[in-house]
Amino acid sequence: MIRVTLITIGDELLKGRIVNTNTTQIGSLLRRHGYSLQRNLTISDNREAIGQTVTEALESSDIVLTCGGLGPTRDDITKHTLAELFHSQLVWHAPTLAFLEARLAARGRVLNDLTRRQALVPDVCEVVPNPNGTAPGMMFRRGQSLLFCMPGVPFEMIHMLEDGVLPRMKAAFSPGYFDHRIVRMTDIPESDAAMRMETFENEKHPALAVSYLPRLDGLWIEVSVRMEEGQRAEAEQILNDAWMQVRGLFADKIYAIDERSLPDAIGEALRSRGLTLAVAESLTGGKIAASIVSVSGASDYFKGSVTAYAVSVKTSVLHVPQEVIDSQGVVSEAVARAMAEQVRILLGADLGLATTGLAEKDGDVFPRAWIAVADAAGSEARLLNLHYDRPSNIEYVSNYALRMGLERLAGTSSPVI
Amino acid sequence: MIRVTLITIGDELLKGRIVNTNTTQIGSLLRRHGYSLQRNLTISDNREAIGQTVTEALESSDIVLTCGGLGPTRDDITKHTLAELFHSQLVWHAPTLAFLEARLAARGRVLNDLTRRQALVPDVCEVVPNPNGTAPGMMFRRGQSLLFCMPGVPFEMIHMLEDGVLPRMKAAFSPGYFDHRIVRMTDIPESDAAMRMETFENEKHPALAVSYLPRLDGLWIEVSVRMEEGQRAEAEQILNDAWMQVRGLFADKIYAIDERSLPDAIGEALRSRGLTLAVAESLTGGKIAASIVSVSGASDYFKGSVTAYAVSVKTSVLHVPQEVIDSQGVVSEAVARAMAEQVRILLGADLGLATTGLAEKDGDVFPRAWIAVADAAGSEARLLNLHYDRPSNIEYVSNYALRMGLERLAGTSSPVI
Repeated sequence: MIRVTLITIGDELLKGRIVNTNTTQIGSLLRRHGYSLQRNLTISDNREAIGQTVTEALESSDIVLTCGGLGPTRDDITKHTLAELFHSQLVWHAPTLAFLEARLAARGRVLNDLTRRQALVPDVCEVVPNPNGTAPGMMFRRGQSLLFCMPGVPFEMIHMLEDGVLPRMKAAFSPGYFDHRIVRMTDIPESDAAMRMETFENEKHPALAVSYLPRLDGLWIEVSVRMEEGQRAEAEQILNDAWMQVRGLFADKIYAIDERSLPDAIGEALRSRGLTLAVAESLTGGKIAASIVSVSGASDYFKGSVTAYAVSVKTSVLHVPQEVIDSQGVVSEAVARAMAEQVRILLGADLGLATTGLAEKDGDVFPRAWIAVADAAGSEARLLNLHYDRPSNIEYVSNYALRMGLERLAGTSSPVI
Repeated sequence: MIRVTLITIGDELLKGRIVNTNTTQIGSLLRRHGYSLQRNLTISDNREAIGQTVTEALESSDIVLTCGGLGPTRDDITKHTLAELFHSQLVWHAPTLAFLEARLAARGRVLNDLTRRQALVPDVCEVVPNPNGTAPGMMFRRGQSLLFCMPGVPFEMIHMLEDGVLPRMKAAFSPGYFDHRIVRMTDIPESDAAMRMETFENEKHPALAVSYLPRLDGLWIEVSVRMEEGQRAEAEQILNDAWMQVRGLFADKIYAIDERSLPDAIGEALRSRGLTLAVAESLTGGKIAASIVSVSGASDYFKGSVTAYAVSVKTSVLHVPQEVIDSQGVVSEAVARAMAEQVRILLGADLGLATTGLAEKDGDVFPRAWIAVADAAGSEARLLNLHYDRPSNIEYVSNYALRMGLERLAGTSSPVI
């Protein structure tokens, strides 16, 4: 197994000012290419911490990736520390300097001194181009090990990793054969799923690994195989057999497989049927619509949404009858169903989804939500009691609404695939 | 300085299946209580990795926190590894068992064997209660150092940290005096900001630290002070003086201070003026509304939104004239302004915000957005060219729209505070 260590550098990560999505992106991309991230060390913008952590990581890893600390300000000191570590001088890298000048000129800005110094790199490194930003990437060698330094800005980093770093990693260390499959399911506690899996786990091939991931969009189970590159055919067979067994064990619970998210899954279900969707949101406040639009090409099937946060918007825009609100309450089955029915008519869509509820405790009233789905044949609704905090409740209800839409599209309350 | 190490445990973090928001939450909460997280080590659910990492961390830290690996499934092996490490036996913890039975009964479920075993804990640890889940927290002592083990489920962890872990940390290690201030600003590159700060940085008190954080909602600059507890009065004075200087340097750029986010800031601006808001979204698809609703109490000032993703919804619901779309194009100043004007009328709000644009490249057309704001006095719009990927462009435009709303509320294009 190739040992890969990721070092993420930045006080802002440890201070809780920024979420470390880079580790997620890097872990996922490495995995798709057959590498496994063994550990991720997050340290501060501190010369001693950077020097010591990089040195130790190079001793115990084949590949070390660093991310962050390459910005132009004083607290970004990675480059100077690495130059010292490799007994190297900073020199001007002419192609980077030319790139920076052209980039700034295209935006009508002048290259200030701080930005110009981004073109200074240690003379022993190989520059890995950064077409999306000002900080160039760097590759260093120590013994058999490789060190890659990438910027911390997520979209700069991910493109550099894919186009500049991974090809150099593969040239030095072939990752062997690895593949994985995921089933995504709802409505089953992790411990119940593990008990269903008991016989499978006890009898599974030693090249297989299973992991459980409880999430707000349901439980994921991943089955993976890792073997030598020469054993590819055997590995594929082993994974495929395992995969059929796991799918069989959860046939009643699965809503999607592999990399498809819930918004992907509902998008595909709508597109394949030539249908369109509209959403009416109260407590979810736009979250369902935003998640649908996160998928490229959503305009093929998504008409739009109404966030009816104020009661007045429920009556004036969505035409929910005032007497229904007065008699049933605004958090009620009748209001949820009326919202779903009305929004599909108002926006001219085939399927309507709606939510109404309380995202957090209000006095003595516990958080809960009514979720409805409507199509030309009618509507249905379900009540969910909510046990999380405000943002998690909103996310949970949004996911649940998408799942109800998927079930309705499948014409049944049982599995959609 | 008290040395705090956080170990986050979970294959899913390294595989990129889940974003590590726990480190963000923990880093931020520790900081508010005067502690600094020195490093965060993310490792896999592997007995050897857990044992070795915890042992090394205890040698070089005053406080070690672990997070994750306490679930009931086979891949969660933290508890067994810690029992071995502390030469300890797993014993039944009666209060936890009673809690689990009551919890499951309240939800109409039976306690299965896997969940029951959550009440087994190493006999040398002190149990830290987990009122929100099944895995109890644990505190261990080694020499002068403390080890706290918390579950990985975010809302279980954060409540345990606040109510169970922090009081025990403070009893053992007082954090000294620490405080910080943040200015949040838009429209200034990090390098330009650093150049404005040059004199301040060269002359600042040695107890002060400055950091820069470029984000999609603008640039943040944090100024912090750390001194002994007995020097509180002096430290407060030093921070206050520094803070006034930094605010003065960026008076033309600041939109919010300290922990206030953009949705917080616009909420406060609306509430203090007794005004209400409505939003019409095209490319942002619900993101602006969802971010407004993320703030507790948003119903005081937020009427709702229309996501007019399909052109037909722009004309039918928002009454944007078809001839304007035909003559100007759907991504145009006229359409953005019409959307902002119409949505405030339709939803009965004082202020309207609107977006229309392309979140990613479409053939030869580069991503761009028109953003508009409208009130009773009229409307205005701005064109943004977008340089990021699809999700980042959506976030950037959403943030920009909120910023335009803030400026309009301030009655000027200059600073709002």
